[in-house]
Amino acid sequence: MNDIHHHPDQNNGPAVDIGTAYGMKAGTHDPFITEVGPGTPCGEWMRRYWQPIALATDATTTPTEIRILGEDLILFRDKQGRPGLLYPRCAHRGTSLLYGRCEDDGIRCCYHGWKFDVQGHCLEQPCEPNGGSKLELARQPWYPLQEQYGVIWAYMGPPDKKPLLQKYDIFEDLEPDEYIDATDMGRSTGGLGKRFISPCNWMQHQENVLDPSHVHILHVAFSGYQLAGKSDRPTMDEPWKFEYVEDGVRETNVSYYDDGRRVERIFQCRFPNEKRAADPYFRAGKFHVLGFTVPVDDTHILVITISRFKKNQPQLHVQLNLGGKAWDQMTPEERRDTPGDYEAQTGQGGITLHSEEHLATSDRGVVMWRRAVRKQIEIVQAGGDPAGVNYDPAKQTVIVGNGNTFSTVSEVPVTAKKVVDSLV
Amino acid sequence: MNDIHHHPDQNNGPAVDIGTAYGMKAGTHDPFITEVGPGTPCGEWMRRYWQPIALATDATTTPTEIRILGEDLILFRDKQGRPGLLYPRCAHRGTSLLYGRCEDDGIRCCYHGWKFDVQGHCLEQPCEPNGGSKLELARQPWYPLQEQYGVIWAYMGPPDKKPLLQKYDIFEDLEPDEYIDATDMGRSTGGLGKRFISPCNWMQHQENVLDPSHVHILHVAFSGYQLAGKSDRPTMDEPWKFEYVEDGVRETNVSYYDDGRRVERIFQCRFPNEKRAADPYFRAGKFHVLGFTVPVDDTHILVITISRFKKNQPQLHVQLNLGGKAWDQMTPEERRDTPGDYEAQTGQGGITLHSEEHLATSDRGVVMWRRAVRKQIEIVQAGGDPAGVNYDPAKQTVIVGNGNTFSTVSEVPVTAKKVVDSLV
Amino acid sequence: MNDIHHHPDQNNGPAVDIGTAYGMKAGTHDPFITEVGPGTPCGEWMRRYWQPIALATDATTTPTEIRILGEDLILFRDKQGRPGLLYPRCAHRGTSLLYGRCEDDGIRCCYHGWKFDVQGHCLEQPCEPNGGSKLELARQPWYPLQEQYGVIWAYMGPPDKKPLLQKYDIFEDLEPDEYIDATDMGRSTGGLGKRFISPCNWMQHQENVLDPSHVHILHVAFSGYQLAGKSDRPTMDEPWKFEYVEDGVRETNVSYYDDGRRVERIFQCRFPNEKRAADPYFRAGKFHVLGFTVPVDDTHILVITISRFKKNQPQLHVQLNLGGKAWDQMTPEERRDTPGDYEAQTGQGGITLHSEEHLATSDRGVVMWRRAVRKQIEIVQAGGDPAGVNYDPAKQTVIVGNGNTFSTVSEVPVTAKKVVDSLV
Repeated sequence: MNDIHHHPDQNNGPAVDIGTAYGMKAGTHDPFITEVGPGTPCGEWMRRYWQPIALATDATTTPTEIRILGEDLILFRDKQGRPGLLYPRCAHRGTSLLYGRCEDDGIRCCYHGWKFDVQGHCLEQPCEPNGGSKLELARQPWYPLQEQYGVIWAYMGPPDKKPLLQKYDIFEDLEPDEYIDATDMGRSTGGLGKRFISPCNWMQHQENVLDPSHVHILHVAFSGYQLAGKSDRPTMDEPWKFEYVEDGVRETNVSYYDDGRRVERIFQCRFPNEKRAADPYFRAGKFHVLGFTVPVDDTHILVITISRFKKNQPQLHVQLNLGGKAWDQMTPEERRDTPGDYEAQTGQGGITLHSEEHLATSDRGVVMWRRAVRKQIEIVQAGGDPAGVNYDPAKQTVIVGNGNTFSTVSEVPVTAKKVVDSLV
Repeated sequence: MNDIHHHPDQNNGPAVDIGTAYGMKAGTHDPFITEVGPGTPCGEWMRRYWQPIALATDATTTPTEIRILGEDLILFRDKQGRPGLLYPRCAHRGTSLLYGRCEDDGIRCCYHGWKFDVQGHCLEQPCEPNGGSKLELARQPWYPLQEQYGVIWAYMGPPDKKPLLQKYDIFEDLEPDEYIDATDMGRSTGGLGKRFISPCNWMQHQENVLDPSHVHILHVAFSGYQLAGKSDRPTMDEPWKFEYVEDGVRETNVSYYDDGRRVERIFQCRFPNEKRAADPYFRAGKFHVLGFTVPVDDTHILVITISRFKKNQPQLHVQLNLGGKAWDQMTPEERRDTPGDYEAQTGQGGITLHSEEHLATSDRGVVMWRRAVRKQIEIVQAGGDPAGVNYDPAKQTVIVGNGNTFSTVSEVPVTAKKVVDSLV
Repeated sequence: MNDIHHHPDQNNGPAVDIGTAYGMKAGTHDPFITEVGPGTPCGEWMRRYWQPIALATDATTTPTEIRILGEDLILFRDKQGRPGLLYPRCAHRGTSLLYGRCEDDGIRCCYHGWKFDVQGHCLEQPCEPNGGSKLELARQPWYPLQEQYGVIWAYMGPPDKKPLLQKYDIFEDLEPDEYIDATDMGRSTGGLGKRFISPCNWMQHQENVLDPSHVHILHVAFSGYQLAGKSDRPTMDEPWKFEYVEDGVRETNVSYYDDGRRVERIFQCRFPNEKRAADPYFRAGKFHVLGFTVPVDDTHILVITISRFKKNQPQLHVQLNLGGKAWDQMTPEERRDTPGDYEAQTGQGGITLHSEEHLATSDRGVVMWRRAVRKQIEIVQAGGDPAGVNYDPAKQTVIVGNGNTFSTVSEVPVTAKKVVDSLV
């Protein structure tokens, strides 16, 4: 018998059990900051920004189905090279444009041949007299797209609110030996497969950025140096600092090395779903990587990452691994035994149950981010423009500030003084 | 940048985007003419006719589960050769008769051995005193069946309205070298597999028959002569004619060959779910083939086709193919690239969204068929007998009129003058 | 034509069809005695008893997910050897403890390292100042466990009603050559796989015990001696007797052998979900086997069986077979052709439709068990203690009475006089 309890009538043992799961109320999530479908508060806020929805290479003359913000759409590219994002059901009789044929100026439905351009204009109805007399009545619902940094950006919001597409200083003014690379492989989250989709709400992934403690537990103590190796990691010698900034929430942490160097690291969640880290390998300087936690729907995400690389350097994507094995090379048992971001985030369920949480001081970044998101959504609900939406060409380039700043000139980290080794 | 837009505040660019998918209302389907479950308007209409539910060879002494009109049933054959169609749950304690044993006079449930005949009479309750004293109280719900033309027909409607099972002139009075063949392989729709079930509503398949334009786009221009070859196809020189007839909607189209021959082709949708075509290979005369678009449930169909063949001729089933490949030999990518009826019809979804359609002049046949169906359903709702329901043995044989009629005696088509080649 | 019917208007044939499936009302189940989720009448009754939820060997230092009574839980064992059953979502931020690490005194969540013991006490919050200052506020919901007879028993009911865990006379006072074995392989129900779960409501399996007629039909006449062989089986010469007893419903049946021996066999369903049989191989004496029909949820069960064996004898588990093949070695077709308990019980559906049943005299045991269960549930609803719940250590050992009692001293059955061979 491992557990001896006595009935209260017996008056001779410990009191009745406390805290059992009996009678638990069903937990609930907060839909206001999590649900992203059309017409939802968070979804309407998200739709006020250009969203990165796919890699430029995903838009080809073979149409493909994608789901973004709970909407099913067809992505394609006409033979002039213009990408298009259309509602899937042909305006005529509803056959999916997945079976459509990309032509020079648009996509043609397989069933009766109606053709639409990337803005949904009906160009042709070949079985109608004279090719169709009222083409303008058959507009195929569409979304405007732009291509930038190897990514296709869509604006899925109210047309009269469409902002300028932002540029980022870290991706502009490339040197001749530099290039921009974009990936949707969800490396830090899990898989290496193309367009890797993780089954959890966008906030669960986004919150991770402002959650420095999980690095020390999940990625170090628990699963054994999934990111930088043991010797590359300084101590955490000053309290983490979290600040509301104009366009999101910023985290700063400071550590010292044995040799006296001090490194200040800046991370940020930027509205609406942009994420910025400091180089996890502790290289000095701005981190020339941005991530986007793109909601596929309420319970799935796609992570798009844009990086600036030097041509003569190996691409150093952030990728969890254990013993040299990448996530998608591990067995389910190995993943269970050495969990990473994918397991921790999807292990919270499709949408986590906020009503059951016990938040503590180390969750300060998460709490601030939730508050900041809530406030932005409320601004949209009140008819305003949320932070980061910009209509001024003079302000089109965003200055990115995240990265590692060392107090000495050396950019090569030395052996760490101490790690949170007690749990390893 | 492929797509330059400016904010309206800037007053320097094109107007705000029009016709985007933002704010689209959710589409709806018309349940009145599509949904077929018990008690639905369309379902009650369908149930006023004998329905072909399976091939005669499907009813064997091994029970099998089938779903028809949204009802799950068990089809079997007793050892006297009588087919039976019973509600699956044994009247006793509900175990599925799928596990039953077919005996000479009925089927016996595996659990406690109650035996039922093909009309649901309980014949035996072996564990009850004297084999059961009130057998008549345990009637197993059943449906009457008839076998004809290699097909099993069920009457699933109100018992006091059961009509006579129709015969068809094209399948009667066989010559010694002729025979009737039935198939449920869904050849023109897609698969060759046994009892091939397509995931779409019955109207999506049925409408295809009165939709001549899709032939020229889907089967010719788009996917490259999926039916008759290029050289076998005349031009379309006269407008298509659609007519309401007593028992459905009929389409007539006329074409001319280079050599002056004129061919008049007649197609028909007949109430409730019968379909008749003209020979797609342009052979002259009545087309000795009937099809039935049998609803499995609201979003699935089974297509049963009955043909009259000559013994010394190859069976020429209508079968889509491309480059000699049948549908079920193609990869998913090949199907996407050369879509046929299956892709076009299932690409409309489980039930298409009528509210989003933009019907045009070439949809005239579809529109007329929907109207005609609606009217028949309303007749049933008003307590009347719908068209085609017959109680008079003198009128039991239906005269079929579809086919190709040539104005010259030649039955061999010659090279076509012109095809809709511009899109090929 | 197999079935000739005439329309009533014709006045020349049989009357209109009777008893067809047309217009059947949808069947319903009785939720009162079947549904087991938190807060349901039956579920609250079940929760008043210690439930066998897993084998002792299922609780290891690798956490595992289990579902019991509709609740998802994590089973684990700390390195001191104590089993734990916790709510899966970490009290902190909800990551599943499936990814937790078992330590000496509890389980640690992978995400931020909070550690809980088997009673849900939070022992550590490593990222909080000083390891967490208010650990007692973060109690992880838990259930008390005990280990006995190789099984883990959980009490999932109201804490102030927790009874003593029962012992059974047949499993106590082992001789040196005896041992207790527990299995969750669901042998008589079907599979041999570990933790075999069958898709049906618990009542469908439990009712089987008081349903002697199914043995003669399903296991003998239908599928050919799935249990004891033909020669080991006596006749059924006296009516079955069913009795309400203090803790359930008992069945007694009597049979005679050719040599004049008389065997009296006792079966019982004991509250809430315990089942007791007589040795199906007709060995004399108490049957040293107990089964438990453990509800996984409303439509799934796990069967846990505890047996007392002699070390020098082969384990003779009850296992259905046909021609030497166990259930999980059969093809689906073989299972369909020789159905057993699994097919009969799951063939009734997830929860059988009581509204459609036609109960007869041979269902007397089933009817009595349902009534008895209903009454116990009503006792709980009225605030009372249901039968079998015990707080008195002096009454902790239950005396088990099921088994085969022969009127002669021979324990070796001889050739049976007659079996229900007419149906074989």
